[in-house]
Amino acid sequence: MKLPKFEPNEAILFGETADIYFARTIDILRNEGLNPVATMEVFSSRAGILCGMEEVKSLLTNVLPEGNREVWALDEGEAMSEKEVVLRITAPYQSYGLYETAIDGILAHCSGWATAARECVEAARGIPVISFGVRHVHPLVVGVMDYAAIIGGCAGCSSIAGAKLAGIEPSGTMPHALIIIMGDTVTATIAFDKYMPPEVPRVSLVDTFKDEAEESLRVAQALGDKLDSVRLDTPSERGGVTADLVKEVRARLDLAGFKQVKIFVSGDIDPERISYFIESEALVDGFGVGSYISGAKPVDFTADLHEVEGKPIAKRGRIPGITPNPRLKRVM
Amino acid sequence: MKLPKFEPNEAILFGETADIYFARTIDILRNEGLNPVATMEVFSSRAGILCGMEEVKSLLTNVLPEGNREVWALDEGEAMSEKEVVLRITAPYQSYGLYETAIDGILAHCSGWATAARECVEAARGIPVISFGVRHVHPLVVGVMDYAAIIGGCAGCSSIAGAKLAGIEPSGTMPHALIIIMGDTVTATIAFDKYMPPEVPRVSLVDTFKDEAEESLRVAQALGDKLDSVRLDTPSERGGVTADLVKEVRARLDLAGFKQVKIFVSGDIDPERISYFIESEALVDGFGVGSYISGAKPVDFTADLHEVEGKPIAKRGRIPGITPNPRLKRVM
Amino acid sequence: MKLPKFEPNEAILFGETADIYFARTIDILRNEGLNPVATMEVFSSRAGILCGMEEVKSLLTNVLPEGNREVWALDEGEAMSEKEVVLRITAPYQSYGLYETAIDGILAHCSGWATAARECVEAARGIPVISFGVRHVHPLVVGVMDYAAIIGGCAGCSSIAGAKLAGIEPSGTMPHALIIIMGDTVTATIAFDKYMPPEVPRVSLVDTFKDEAEESLRVAQALGDKLDSVRLDTPSERGGVTADLVKEVRARLDLAGFKQVKIFVSGDIDPERISYFIESEALVDGFGVGSYISGAKPVDFTADLHEVEGKPIAKRGRIPGITPNPRLKRVM
Amino acid sequence: MKLPKFEPNEAILFGETADIYFARTIDILRNEGLNPVATMEVFSSRAGILCGMEEVKSLLTNVLPEGNREVWALDEGEAMSEKEVVLRITAPYQSYGLYETAIDGILAHCSGWATAARECVEAARGIPVISFGVRHVHPLVVGVMDYAAIIGGCAGCSSIAGAKLAGIEPSGTMPHALIIIMGDTVTATIAFDKYMPPEVPRVSLVDTFKDEAEESLRVAQALGDKLDSVRLDTPSERGGVTADLVKEVRARLDLAGFKQVKIFVSGDIDPERISYFIESEALVDGFGVGSYISGAKPVDFTADLHEVEGKPIAKRGRIPGITPNPRLKRVM
Amino acid sequence: MKLPKFEPNEAILFGETADIYFARTIDILRNEGLNPVATMEVFSSRAGILCGMEEVKSLLTNVLPEGNREVWALDEGEAMSEKEVVLRITAPYQSYGLYETAIDGILAHCSGWATAARECVEAARGIPVISFGVRHVHPLVVGVMDYAAIIGGCAGCSSIAGAKLAGIEPSGTMPHALIIIMGDTVTATIAFDKYMPPEVPRVSLVDTFKDEAEESLRVAQALGDKLDSVRLDTPSERGGVTADLVKEVRARLDLAGFKQVKIFVSGDIDPERISYFIESEALVDGFGVGSYISGAKPVDFTADLHEVEGKPIAKRGRIPGITPNPRLKRVM
Amino acid sequence: MKLPKFEPNEAILFGETADIYFARTIDILRNEGLNPVATMEVFSSRAGILCGMEEVKSLLTNVLPEGNREVWALDEGEAMSEKEVVLRITAPYQSYGLYETAIDGILAHCSGWATAARECVEAARGIPVISFGVRHVHPLVVGVMDYAAIIGGCAGCSSIAGAKLAGIEPSGTMPHALIIIMGDTVTATIAFDKYMPPEVPRVSLVDTFKDEAEESLRVAQALGDKLDSVRLDTPSERGGVTADLVKEVRARLDLAGFKQVKIFVSGDIDPERISYFIESEALVDGFGVGSYISGAKPVDFTADLHEVEGKPIAKRGRIPGITPNPRLKRVM
Repeated sequence: MKLPKFEPNEAILFGETADIYFARTIDILRNEGLNPVATMEVFSSRAGILCGMEEVKSLLTNVLPEGNREVWALDEGEAMSEKEVVLRITAPYQSYGLYETAIDGILAHCSGWATAARECVEAARGIPVISFGVRHVHPLVVGVMDYAAIIGGCAGCSSIAGAKLAGIEPSGTMPHALIIIMGDTVTATIAFDKYMPPEVPRVSLVDTFKDEAEESLRVAQALGDKLDSVRLDTPSERGGVTADLVKEVRARLDLAGFKQVKIFVSGDIDPERISYFIESEALVDGFGVGSYISGAKPVDFTADLHEVEGKPIAKRGRIPGITPNPRLKRVM
Repeated sequence: MKLPKFEPNEAILFGETADIYFARTIDILRNEGLNPVATMEVFSSRAGILCGMEEVKSLLTNVLPEGNREVWALDEGEAMSEKEVVLRITAPYQSYGLYETAIDGILAHCSGWATAARECVEAARGIPVISFGVRHVHPLVVGVMDYAAIIGGCAGCSSIAGAKLAGIEPSGTMPHALIIIMGDTVTATIAFDKYMPPEVPRVSLVDTFKDEAEESLRVAQALGDKLDSVRLDTPSERGGVTADLVKEVRARLDLAGFKQVKIFVSGDIDPERISYFIESEALVDGFGVGSYISGAKPVDFTADLHEVEGKPIAKRGRIPGITPNPRLKRVM
Repeated sequence: MKLPKFEPNEAILFGETADIYFARTIDILRNEGLNPVATMEVFSSRAGILCGMEEVKSLLTNVLPEGNREVWALDEGEAMSEKEVVLRITAPYQSYGLYETAIDGILAHCSGWATAARECVEAARGIPVISFGVRHVHPLVVGVMDYAAIIGGCAGCSSIAGAKLAGIEPSGTMPHALIIIMGDTVTATIAFDKYMPPEVPRVSLVDTFKDEAEESLRVAQALGDKLDSVRLDTPSERGGVTADLVKEVRARLDLAGFKQVKIFVSGDIDPERISYFIESEALVDGFGVGSYISGAKPVDFTADLHEVEGKPIAKRGRIPGITPNPRLKRVM
Repeated sequence: MKLPKFEPNEAILFGETADIYFARTIDILRNEGLNPVATMEVFSSRAGILCGMEEVKSLLTNVLPEGNREVWALDEGEAMSEKEVVLRITAPYQSYGLYETAIDGILAHCSGWATAARECVEAARGIPVISFGVRHVHPLVVGVMDYAAIIGGCAGCSSIAGAKLAGIEPSGTMPHALIIIMGDTVTATIAFDKYMPPEVPRVSLVDTFKDEAEESLRVAQALGDKLDSVRLDTPSERGGVTADLVKEVRARLDLAGFKQVKIFVSGDIDPERISYFIESEALVDGFGVGSYISGAKPVDFTADLHEVEGKPIAKRGRIPGITPNPRLKRVM
Repeated sequence: MKLPKFEPNEAILFGETADIYFARTIDILRNEGLNPVATMEVFSSRAGILCGMEEVKSLLTNVLPEGNREVWALDEGEAMSEKEVVLRITAPYQSYGLYETAIDGILAHCSGWATAARECVEAARGIPVISFGVRHVHPLVVGVMDYAAIIGGCAGCSSIAGAKLAGIEPSGTMPHALIIIMGDTVTATIAFDKYMPPEVPRVSLVDTFKDEAEESLRVAQALGDKLDSVRLDTPSERGGVTADLVKEVRARLDLAGFKQVKIFVSGDIDPERISYFIESEALVDGFGVGSYISGAKPVDFTADLHEVEGKPIAKRGRIPGITPNPRLKRVM
Repeated sequence: MKLPKFEPNEAILFGETADIYFARTIDILRNEGLNPVATMEVFSSRAGILCGMEEVKSLLTNVLPEGNREVWALDEGEAMSEKEVVLRITAPYQSYGLYETAIDGILAHCSGWATAARECVEAARGIPVISFGVRHVHPLVVGVMDYAAIIGGCAGCSSIAGAKLAGIEPSGTMPHALIIIMGDTVTATIAFDKYMPPEVPRVSLVDTFKDEAEESLRVAQALGDKLDSVRLDTPSERGGVTADLVKEVRARLDLAGFKQVKIFVSGDIDPERISYFIESEALVDGFGVGSYISGAKPVDFTADLHEVEGKPIAKRGRIPGITPNPRLKRVM
């Protein structure tokens, strides 16, 4: 995948999203005429998948003075271990001190999403995982969230904004709303097939009004070879999607001659549920994951000064001087 | 507090942050010529503090046809119970169907933050809690996050963007970076005092280079009556801030005649830690809370159609027709 | 309820079902010419509902010598506490020594079933519980098992043999087999209605081929006022019967005007599940309980000699002499 | 072991022990003139030892029409896995539909007992296990219970009825009652020896009045070479039988020259206690097991129709058509 | 009880039992000519019964200069809470600095024993508890251990040294060794009765060779009214003493007319076991407690300087100055 | 290490520390003229390190008749397993019966301390462990406690008495009291250096007034090459010593050129904490262990007679006759 070009927005550049005390610090240092070259290191609080580094680099490119800067970093999407230094900046402190909040925040949120996505993808052992969770985050971060899910290994995502950032096509089936408005699953599926461009796969949602097995056969009979998949999204009030339901729908489709129709599962999916389907030998062809990825806990990052004007220094609790990490690459 | 005026941005209005299948649904319905008046209800997955409703209402005002809409909702900041309907929209479906994702997402993320903030505030029993967690979220949501923390009951927040949304002044002390650059806590505190406007409280961070108790006395002696507080932020490598440390610093300050200097505590603070300080009778004057609020799990919301053209309907697992909730107020 | 008349069968009377060592003991005592009047006490290992005493008394009436016997007992169906003496026999030892096995066994098995039934009945707080578990026990004990369930408080039972012993009519709905053979739930329900006598309630099993809510409406429309209940027996492969399913079926039936149709629930029902439905406020009108009652662990009973020829005696671990229990009544 | 010949009793054949709804189903089908050839499969709810199949086959032989039946089954005593199909019947439905209850019940109860017996036998690693639990079940099932224990691997059983079914001699020692009536363990043991046929092993129960070690030496001295074993059955009030007690009795017997006398242990024995004795290296020569076997939970079985007139069919939650199981053998 | 007069031994006074660094500290201060009046406070690490204070005061009387000392303390045997200051010494530091180790050690070990004794006494609700644990401690501390047990509330102790310190008569029954040497319990009991002075209660140990119940009756018949008690000390290999054994021995003694004979229980007794007997309503007349008291964990004590020459001071982690405790009394 | 020469004191020899009933037993036997040769075996209740045997042997040498005694034992410091016989005495019973209490007590207390010491030493994998716990035991056992710690593997101990018994020099650093009296850590360290003989290592305690890292550098700069180690003893009120603190102090010392200064850790150290430092790769050079060793639970020992006049005998619960143990060596 080709990495996107990020552009820092004005609120970030003007420090509006920063902790106020960084703004005050810059103010004091300017008054004091202090602007030493300082080295700041950023490390993660736990192991995971690093994400957000491209956006951070775009920010640093905008603010660090070109002739007086040295930046070392891990790559977007790399696995990082607990307490590993993932970024080291050496430059005049006034040029970047205001952005400590933004650097930490971009990495924290994006790495949290990418790490959760990776856990799902690993549990799925090759079966495609699609990010379906934009409804659990504020629209302002829908794009970066779905982008991070793709960095973490998802095969697709449901939002237009995320897909654009990741350079892919968005994925989608049909919502319950369409079926409820049209009054019947088969009617809605036929309408979907009638108006959607041919490259959009025909995936019918089969749990709205009737039994899933009965409805699967009805849509298969209505669309024939054109039906790509059925999606099972049984609500928890009805016991959720069980491995036995998947097996039964598979068996009844096969018995009726629809072996080519795939089964897509969604609804409260997380790595544990994915493993349950796989270990139960239920033949799922794709998983839609929602809040496990989009509601993932951010991976906290911490930034510390380790050298000022070339001299090792650190606050209590930290080791003064550069922390060795041979995995870092020079990026600026 | 006066509620802010939100303006929906273009990406949301154009549906870029929506699940693609809602865009397709609107497309199909237009082709079919179907635009029934439909009633959608939104309910929360768990109890908490509702937040984001002002932003949702601003979005709906922009999209629903003025003469043909009815919207009922709970207020921003109200407590809601598990599975409670917090919003009910009746309008032509094509006018709002595309925004189901954004409505759910705004409420989910903001209510998650506000609910976590409320837990801290309740544990603190009147001692002010300040939101200090912007470094754990993407800068794009720094403003709404800190705004939600204030809605949840926080007395202040550290970001300029959040404070602006909430109509208050941002709160801040001084970062370790300032002290490391200036080389000494007392020097940094004097500089802070010299350049900052008088209305900014003088809060000195006392754990950077020397023992907290020793440093507290040093800054108190240097600033005298002008010192508002010391902040304890001892890192976990040094055992974190303990209730006994607070008591000892309090006792040593009192013994030296600095009874007016307050003690502010930060670092891995959550409701359990807040209760620990209070139950240990350590006299803390303020808590700074970070990732417990900003990294809070969103409160999932679900939107369902319950009536189409006045007729009760619902997908399997739901009860057809309007769900009674006398707490809802008509807002549009 | 009028208690039935039990008749001991020949295998029991001839000692075929006894432990062999009791037969040998009688043999030795006869050879030695020893037949002292001895007092045997029987106590239960745990608290519960006493059942089987009527059958035991019928056995004792057959074997104890009329002029030389004294029997004290608790009543059929009484609650007993842990280690309580429930039966005391004083008679020549040769007349009853052979039946210690049978006495213990009748009380153990029947009290186990009655105790489990009582737990379900108490959990159900007035909602009728029907014993549906004959398929989990050997046909030879079907009658006594269902009889014990009734003694424990069940409102009905499914076996003809059990109902006969308890002096009631057997209860039944319709099996999946009837619907599968006839090919459709509505067809089967109409046939059931056509041939069954009017006093048999029309209870339709609604989970065989179609969604439970859809099928409930279909049978209600087909039978109208004649329909007494629907039975929900959703298999675990489909998530079992949930409280939400009950609520939804209730709501959809009410919405369609079938408020008089009752809802009966079966499938893995035990006291915990019964409480779950009640605490979830799902309006269940009857519970069918299977293996929780019929597969209940027997309540072990122990018989000990406490007097021989009027002299207190006991094995190690027991107190010699009569154990006082004012609740015992003289029955022979 | 030669399998016994079972004869179905009249109550079963006349359907008295059946669930009433099967009787009604046959009635309705007769009225409708429906008697299709149907295939019913029976599977177990958990892994275990299959028992009761001989009795089920005897029932089917009596009721299925000879020219129009096909029955496949596992063998009596075979290990079965969870959800394995153990029996498949293809015949006109009216000929066997009434017996679904009895088939399930015979297999459930007998397999429960055989499975528990097998667990004890496996724990005992070659040391004989005797079924001593008839006092915990109703006398009507004493025979089938002890028979099932033998099928599960027990070396003997205490009931005459069970031994007869299994084609062996019943096993027994002496009860506390004999010793209490005769007033002394040695006197009772001498009387036992005097009147019992020579092939009955002389096993003396040594915990009634005196210390087990002292009494063991007394009976050994009284009977000399004729003493086969002592039985330890110390009640829980006295701490039960401990591994150390077994070792001490063994050592004291050996020291006194009675190395040939064996030690038999009973009282609350289950697989865990058996393992405890073996792992403690206490030399036990035989275990008597009571309620662990006779009070075992039945293994639930479920019967489903999978074909009607050769066409695959099934209720929701099941896979239509024959379930492949190469372990089944055609038995009819 | 009258408190004993303690005399510090030479090894303590010469500092041989001190931590070497205190000896060095005194050495350095002498060389430096430093001997300020200093205040040392001693506090306990957990709640319990204070013991050892009399011995500490005797030590301080020997070493503190009479005209220049002030000592405040809690009383021997008082309950103390967690972290409570139990002793405060103000005197020239050189006079007592060497004895910090001894002061802490005396209080720690003695309070540990007294606290454990108190737990047993409280559990026993008035039934006498005797300290029987000298065999678990080094003979050098046998006296102080049993003394501390009496301070904690025990009614007696088994050692001559402990009884002397506490000013009471030692308590004892008879050991297994006496019975084994003499070959029979009754013979040993008669010999005990023959030679022991009349004021020694006749307590017979009844578990050595024969069953406890049988032996109890034998010694009661042999000694008649002279028998005070039987002691049950059944080893764990025989299941230990159970509440049911106590009840049975009581019942058999009563039945035989020996209602005046008391029952004394020993062997692995601790508060939990004491409560077990009491809650089981087993009528125990006395408990002998061994390692629960004598092997009790010491209660750690800590000594800190809080003032030097009248000025508040303290190491990090402590509050400078006198710690207020109104419960302290001036003792010197 | 050369084992010390123990001398039994008078209180032990006169039986004052014995259980009174042994004194009475000897009295009775003398009156009866009974003094058989008897064999007593002593076994431990759990696995551990045997200690106290040298002292026991010194006692036995004093009391057993030279021509009529046979003693077998394990060596001081040997590992013993659960229930292993560690001592076997054959001699006229009157010569040693009185000392059963002392023998058990010496072994119990000393083996308890040695076993706990060994656990620390094993956890430390070669890093020296010093016994620092005399303040938790009564001064009368300070010597034997520290001696036992050395037998268990400690490299040193803090008491003069213990070091003398073990034939080594006592180990010590400096107490907080010295620093508090002198007012500053550097001042105290310089005084220590000035007056202490050259063979005493200069170990400075660095947590009294200032931050540990800061203080470590101050004392290193003051003493230069003469400084052997710093001791970290951070109190729990300040989070205790953490692995990260050790690493940081190590790094800051190294960075300042003091690589030869070692780090010694004390305060609540036990095997788990030792493993924590080692697994965290914190380079600790020595551990000071306090109450984990000195407050260790004694290892209970039991003494039983197994032969009287050459004939096997034993109380109930034990096996009569000599218990084979090829590891025993004849020592007398």
